Amino acid sequence: MKKYNAVYAQSGGVTSVINASAYGTIVAALEAKEIDRIFAGVNGIKGILNEDLFDLTEEKRSEIDRIPYTPGAIFGSCRTRIESDDDFERLFKVFDAHSIRYFFYNGGNDSMDTAHRLNEKADEIGFPLKVIGIPKTVDNDLLETDHCPGFGSAARFTAISIMEATRDLKSMYSDSTKVFIMESMGRHTGWLAASGSLASTDRFHGPQIILLPEVSFDEESFIERVEDVIMKEGYCSIVASEALKRPDGSYISTAGYYDAFGNVQLGKIGQYLERAIREALKCKVHVALPDYLQRSSRHVASLIDWQEAVEVGALAVREAVNGESGIMISIRRLSGKPYLKEYTKASLEQVANGTKELPSDFISDDGFYVTEEFKSYALPLIQGEAPNLYLHGLPMYENLQRIKTEKLL
Amino acid sequence: MKKYNAVYAQSGGVTSVINASAYGTIVAALEAKEIDRIFAGVNGIKGILNEDLFDLTEEKRSEIDRIPYTPGAIFGSCRTRIESDDDFERLFKVFDAHSIRYFFYNGGNDSMDTAHRLNEKADEIGFPLKVIGIPKTVDNDLLETDHCPGFGSAARFTAISIMEATRDLKSMYSDSTKVFIMESMGRHTGWLAASGSLASTDRFHGPQIILLPEVSFDEESFIERVEDVIMKEGYCSIVASEALKRPDGSYISTAGYYDAFGNVQLGKIGQYLERAIREALKCKVHVALPDYLQRSSRHVASLIDWQEAVEVGALAVREAVNGESGIMISIRRLSGKPYLKEYTKASLEQVANGTKELPSDFISDDGFYVTEEFKSYALPLIQGEAPNLYLHGLPMYENLQRIKTEKLL
Repeated sequence: MKKYNAVYAQSGGVTSVINASAYGTIVAALEAKEIDRIFAGVNGIKGILNEDLFDLTEEKRSEIDRIPYTPGAIFGSCRTRIESDDDFERLFKVFDAHSIRYFFYNGGNDSMDTAHRLNEKADEIGFPLKVIGIPKTVDNDLLETDHCPGFGSAARFTAISIMEATRDLKSMYSDSTKVFIMESMGRHTGWLAASGSLASTDRFHGPQIILLPEVSFDEESFIERVEDVIMKEGYCSIVASEALKRPDGSYISTAGYYDAFGNVQLGKIGQYLERAIREALKCKVHVALPDYLQRSSRHVASLIDWQEAVEVGALAVREAVNGESGIMISIRRLSGKPYLKEYTKASLEQVANGTKELPSDFISDDGFYVTEEFKSYALPLIQGEAPNLYLHGLPMYENLQRIKTEKLL
Repeated sequence: MKKYNAVYAQSGGVTSVINASAYGTIVAALEAKEIDRIFAGVNGIKGILNEDLFDLTEEKRSEIDRIPYTPGAIFGSCRTRIESDDDFERLFKVFDAHSIRYFFYNGGNDSMDTAHRLNEKADEIGFPLKVIGIPKTVDNDLLETDHCPGFGSAARFTAISIMEATRDLKSMYSDSTKVFIMESMGRHTGWLAASGSLASTDRFHGPQIILLPEVSFDEESFIERVEDVIMKEGYCSIVASEALKRPDGSYISTAGYYDAFGNVQLGKIGQYLERAIREALKCKVHVALPDYLQRSSRHVASLIDWQEAVEVGALAVREAVNGESGIMISIRRLSGKPYLKEYTKASLEQVANGTKELPSDFISDDGFYVTEEFKSYALPLIQGEAPNLYLHGLPMYENLQRIKTEKLL
């Protein structure tokens, strides 16, 4: 049997466990008798376009074993979208030149759309390419899967951070800061902001308010709610999605701020809310903007999420060598208590470009919090602590040789 | 022998290990044969003024044992300064009414000043009060001690966070974000910002630039440096102290931002730098503002820092029952490799109101980084992982009964 090569590429914003999926894919490919060499695109699919590939086949296994302990996207990611026929043609040229017959694409909905189109083109031109999507996003907004690898760890970061910060606020409110706001990622959906609710296992629960993009933001009732919480509890802890919208559908975070030069400022939602509260309630407000920290805080990754990230990568290889193509590995929940799941397959076409919003039964009636149903959904996903490798109190990451393949085109 | 009571109070901004010092103090007081009951001020010294005290003597030991696992200041802190003679008089009335002869004050330089003045007043009026300061600050700016409990954990948060975020940036820079800025606490000094340098153990070291308040900020040379780093490495990761100053001594973070209403905005330094870089270099910049997270991230506390925080609390009790007063427990480093220290005593008067800046030999010649001497100083303080209690992936905190003493005045 002639063996062919495989290529793996990372795409879009990273998660703290995207490299766990890289690890699952690489090790499964190294073990698969159908696969000869395993490559990775340098900076995602751009690397494939440019024939810029790492060959992982000769890397030391001890370094490969460190990959799942490393945050970021170890081979580089990109935000490039493959659109033109020229680009697709070029991809097939590279696949052909490097005897690549397996393509593993680790990304979100845009990437699943690219993978889907690539799969269709392969069918059209009769190129024997197996295309498998590996889900990844902290936003948790992919269709056709119970949840997305990456979400559980970002949710755990969010819940633990707001728990800790609320204890801080609780210490200070008597004569200083009364409101703490933490901004949360999620361009279109509130899954990550909602996960702040898991912190409510603590007696001094925080947050008391969660602002979701699925609920249109009414400033007046928000301020009333903050005032009410402060009256009752003395302090108010808030998680706010970066993507809050006004009733007319416009984003709040792109309006209202001007710098000294009069340029409109790409506002931060936390800072917008800080000003609104400070002006209305005349109290001190603190704001945290975790930004990259929430999606790269590998040190606080969830064990379940980390394991699932490895497994979806490894299963992608298994499906590909079994002849599957045009699918994404997805997760189906069998039960919540205890948490049981199975892996299944979703058609790339069905995943492509769709967005899963928080369902309405996950949002409280008043729109300022989530329901117990949401907590039951999310809690299994943050279980356990993914192990870390520490030396001198600092994490140790991979140190691969990063051997490039020879360019043939 | 007649036994007297003791009171412990927390003051100022919290650290992730201030409760470890509370624990050390409380348990040592419970064990000390000279001490009858151990109280804590509700919201710091304000609680003592208001005769608002928790009595910890009857709390379950199993709950007390959870105190060092809890972030924030469990008894509440305050930013109240004791200044008037009336306040000092009132404090002695409360001490007298509640048979308090030991006062343990856990705080920064302002608090050590208050403790010093209280000790002097006690001498003046002949009140047999023992006053011991317990150091605490993430700023690490207390005089007369090698370092301050709280700093090591915040330094570890800073180093790990910038290490993770730099890996994120490294993933994205090829066609997206080229600069990441993380803002760091430190009202007067750059100790915490400097600790970002510990991340440079990683091959893809970050940060490449550290902006310290000890170095006056020159925007032009800063932009040149950022451009230079991007040219060489493709991306630039920055830790910036919140307290940067212009050459004329004015704070940068209070200038330059106006909201939609034309009001000057209390600027965030990260956002200021983001704008400056974006305008000058036309590239995408991400900013993180960890705010409370850096001083309350108990989940990533340093083991050394956590242990030392317990020990300074316990030693405060030991010194007090041995008749000492007017001192702060301090730490003297005996060697760096391996790290060896001993505990010693500093006079409160010498600590009061002084500020220890980063010495010039800890700052690189060009002012954009720190020296190896700084790293050798700071690395021992972030060693090890303080243990966490986790249930369902979330930390478990204390759940004390919080029994109030009866008011007698």
